[in-house]
Amino acid sequence: MVLRLDRESQLSGRDHLSLHLWLRLLTCTTMIEHRVREQLRESFAITLPRFDLMAQLDRAPDGVKMSDLSRRLMVTGGNITGLVDQLVGEGLVVRRDSVEDRRVYEVRLTAKGRRQFEAMAAEHERLIVDLLSGLPRKERDELHESLGELKAALAARIDGRGGKAR
Amino acid sequence: MVLRLDRESQLSGRDHLSLHLWLRLLTCTTMIEHRVREQLRESFAITLPRFDLMAQLDRAPDGVKMSDLSRRLMVTGGNITGLVDQLVGEGLVVRRDSVEDRRVYEVRLTAKGRRQFEAMAAEHERLIVDLLSGLPRKERDELHESLGELKAALAARIDGRGGKAR
Repeated sequence: MVLRLDRESQLSGRDHLSLHLWLRLLTCTTMIEHRVREQLRESFAITLPRFDLMAQLDRAPDGVKMSDLSRRLMVTGGNITGLVDQLVGEGLVVRRDSVEDRRVYEVRLTAKGRRQFEAMAAEHERLIVDLLSGLPRKERDELHESLGELKAALAARIDGRGGKAR
Repeated sequence: MVLRLDRESQLSGRDHLSLHLWLRLLTCTTMIEHRVREQLRESFAITLPRFDLMAQLDRAPDGVKMSDLSRRLMVTGGNITGLVDQLVGEGLVVRRDSVEDRRVYEVRLTAKGRRQFEAMAAEHERLIVDLLSGLPRKERDELHESLGELKAALAARIDGRGGKAR
């Protein structure tokens, strides 16, 4: 699997250093995401988008507007609606009118949904800790630091393009 | 956009360091991927899966079997078939019988497809170089190094699970 996921090893010598850095970043992310996806399917028979949606709801006990959910998850409204419908059908999520604006819906986890998400989140965290355990603590700290600098540099670059990226 | 993409900033204090590291990695990847997707759509009116498929074909001038393409791109055969059909229709890709096994198809770029991919790849590289230019050269080298260690640690961990991951 690792070789097939490894796009960086397919680059030729003429390619630019930044491109190598980007593909290495993408390869690491893909390797972890692939295992997370596998694990969620094996242990809970659920998909990653469903886990991500429940994670957003878990962080907003007062509910989230449908439009905000779409933006946060970067998928189209149609996909979100279908996912929410499924979760409502299973008693994991409820829909209600927004207190501020009765024309919009808010969704939140039920007690059952919260319990199920907590079990999945604990398993997810165990998996991530296990996957990263091969990297010594000092290297993990340094990488966390370096990625913080990258994140700031990217944010400055993307925001610098004007209002569009906001 | 940056705030909405930033899953790491939604973690609470109790979460584990490795989880912070993973979400920072995911945030950086998502920020770059989101810009790449936008750019490919604006400049060439194409999607990221289509770019990825053409990139695989560009690296295999002698052709790639359909089954290998699916594995390399980690999507289902059905999606690949639909994408290849579109590209064949536009004269960018050709299908032919495999020399080794006439029951399987191989696909490769046409001269027109190769020219179009090269223009897209050049634009893609310019974008990546621009996005990462906010990070000083020394930090870029260090990050490249650290991600190499992470990649090796992940590969060891995932391969260590036995035959399953291969």
